[in-house]
Amino acid sequence: MPKISSKALQMPESPIRKLVPYAEKANAQGKKVHFLNIGQPDIKTPKEALEAVRSISMDRVIEYSHSAGYASYRENLANYYKGVGINVSSDDLMITTGGSEALTFGFMSTCNPGDEVIIPEPFYANYNGFAVAAGLNVVPVTASIENGFALPPVEEIKKKVTDKTKAIVICNPGNPTGYLYSKEELEQLRDIVQEHDLFLFADEVYREFCYDGAQPFSVMNLAGIEQNVIMIDSVSKRYSMCGARIGAIVSRNKEVMSSALKFAQARLSPPTLAQIASEAALNTPQSYFDEVVSEYVERRNTMVDGLNAIDGVFCPKPSGAFYCVAKFPVDSTEKFCQWLLESYDYEGETVMMAPASGFYATPGLGEQEARIAYVVNTEDLKKAVTILEEALKVYPGRV
Amino acid sequence: MPKISSKALQMPESPIRKLVPYAEKANAQGKKVHFLNIGQPDIKTPKEALEAVRSISMDRVIEYSHSAGYASYRENLANYYKGVGINVSSDDLMITTGGSEALTFGFMSTCNPGDEVIIPEPFYANYNGFAVAAGLNVVPVTASIENGFALPPVEEIKKKVTDKTKAIVICNPGNPTGYLYSKEELEQLRDIVQEHDLFLFADEVYREFCYDGAQPFSVMNLAGIEQNVIMIDSVSKRYSMCGARIGAIVSRNKEVMSSALKFAQARLSPPTLAQIASEAALNTPQSYFDEVVSEYVERRNTMVDGLNAIDGVFCPKPSGAFYCVAKFPVDSTEKFCQWLLESYDYEGETVMMAPASGFYATPGLGEQEARIAYVVNTEDLKKAVTILEEALKVYPGRV
Repeated sequence: MPKISSKALQMPESPIRKLVPYAEKANAQGKKVHFLNIGQPDIKTPKEALEAVRSISMDRVIEYSHSAGYASYRENLANYYKGVGINVSSDDLMITTGGSEALTFGFMSTCNPGDEVIIPEPFYANYNGFAVAAGLNVVPVTASIENGFALPPVEEIKKKVTDKTKAIVICNPGNPTGYLYSKEELEQLRDIVQEHDLFLFADEVYREFCYDGAQPFSVMNLAGIEQNVIMIDSVSKRYSMCGARIGAIVSRNKEVMSSALKFAQARLSPPTLAQIASEAALNTPQSYFDEVVSEYVERRNTMVDGLNAIDGVFCPKPSGAFYCVAKFPVDSTEKFCQWLLESYDYEGETVMMAPASGFYATPGLGEQEARIAYVVNTEDLKKAVTILEEALKVYPGRV
Repeated sequence: MPKISSKALQMPESPIRKLVPYAEKANAQGKKVHFLNIGQPDIKTPKEALEAVRSISMDRVIEYSHSAGYASYRENLANYYKGVGINVSSDDLMITTGGSEALTFGFMSTCNPGDEVIIPEPFYANYNGFAVAAGLNVVPVTASIENGFALPPVEEIKKKVTDKTKAIVICNPGNPTGYLYSKEELEQLRDIVQEHDLFLFADEVYREFCYDGAQPFSVMNLAGIEQNVIMIDSVSKRYSMCGARIGAIVSRNKEVMSSALKFAQARLSPPTLAQIASEAALNTPQSYFDEVVSEYVERRNTMVDGLNAIDGVFCPKPSGAFYCVAKFPVDSTEKFCQWLLESYDYEGETVMMAPASGFYATPGLGEQEARIAYVVNTEDLKKAVTILEEALKVYPGRV
């Protein structure tokens, strides 16, 4: 039997995959599991998107679009960006199959195998997978929960730069931390990028989810590094259309964009039904986002305030996205999360969280932390907080 | 400005890209261009697929599916395979974003950077792109137009095997040749694969397009290499749904499938709207395919018989797919195809073909050949043949 590849062996498994069998077992035992482990919002997809899909003609041939996406969608998407203060033309962007493909094309277009990319940790675990696929080495720089996962000090980042460093990757607002970088922090990154002539990738898919009046600052607006910046975008979270698989790669660097187009041509076309939905979703009224944001603020407050009220638990209050990372008074969240599913219930209910160690590249970090996605309704979140509070009273590995 | 990657520089451009500006100019001059260069069929998408999409609920959240695709679709797809004589279960297949992603996951799961894959040439040009992305070297073994692009002699293939060889890749029925490998040819490949313990990738997306009573034989039914075989599939051509971007990777090798799943998990989900359409398309009645096949037989006969009736033109008659490769009495089809667009018209009309050199990996091959996709109606194909016949009478580079 021929051997599989070394990349396949290196490919990390999803940080929650180990827990899935325990969740299934808990379900089978009749426990109600509150799933706080995934980023699949329960928010409605805008009716504009669904109506567009429901209106396709029965004579329509589901043809390829241009490899860069439908021209009309690209134009309208450029207008959306202008509306959020990012001045780009349709030539500066290309439609991709989700943010995932945008980042893969970005890595493939800019980095050689063996190159290093610096990423503040904890970070979205799938960045590891895209790095392995492209043959890159992830070099983490650690953000601390005590500082609310702010950008690590500039000196710490600079220490990580070697002659193999090709890019810095950030997610802003952040998954898994929910942290929103300030303009000042982004300007610190800008200076490093400029000094060492690096690319700066920013995953800005949570742009619409900023709270308490906080305004997101896009890397596209950092003066002086226009040729270095590559923005990753997606409709998945913005319109609760995770399954559409429509994203975008955005850059003013023409060499990067024409390289990305070559990778796009090999795979021919992004999905066209989903492009129709995504283009229509651009007409979603502001009231939709206002409602969603106020719902998430309530959920975040419920979850984060609830967690901080539990003895021994600490959770910074994030200004964006719909995740938080909390620290628990336990031996290991890997064990605690498994125990919650396998050996615990409160009134027949329990909670599934994502142990945070999978979001760190440095071994041994995040072992007392877990990521919580507050994507379920407030009532259930209150219940989840109670379950966690009660569970911690009896968990054998409490420290 | 930071440099782009060496992979980006290596990524081949589409074999027809150079001609696109000339086609646009021809259009702008008011010429009617008959596009024989692309594999985008004009055939209708089955109403079952369109109806399913039009029926999605206004309450639906467009959520992620399982990374391997919807469970129900995988079950139903396994049943489809059983119906065409390929006995697999839903565990042996995974839904991908087009055949493109299936091949990429297959390459990434089995081959290390620097490994070699043997591919009979001419071959589908985008295989080059997927190979570059995975860091592989394509080793061509040349099939000849004189033999109708039959499998090259076994000794020729064996000569190409080195200690770097990891896989053989075929497309059956073939793009760009339309050639359908016989069971005997596939058994010759089986013996090589077995002797050298290689993987055998077969792109079988044109399975439904076999003519004159010819029956496709799937690599999945080659006895003795069950653990070596990886089949690539797609709904693009079968249901004229190129824009859906739904494919599948199929293998009985559990290690390959679990590796492919890790790559799939990193990108989260294949497109869900298109999965709904694709699952519904499985209910397309046989009458749809009967009509499509008889239409393609007529088109093929019109095109191939018409070409062979032109003095100096030779075109083997393929048994499958909807392409043919013809040899023209010209200095270079690159020049001839450009001249057709730029400097020629017959009664205000001209033809766009894909020069075949882009489908060969060996430099200098295919320079008198062009690929023709007979995906337009018979009337237009007749006109295209006339245009080519008249053009060859006056083309300055005729040899």
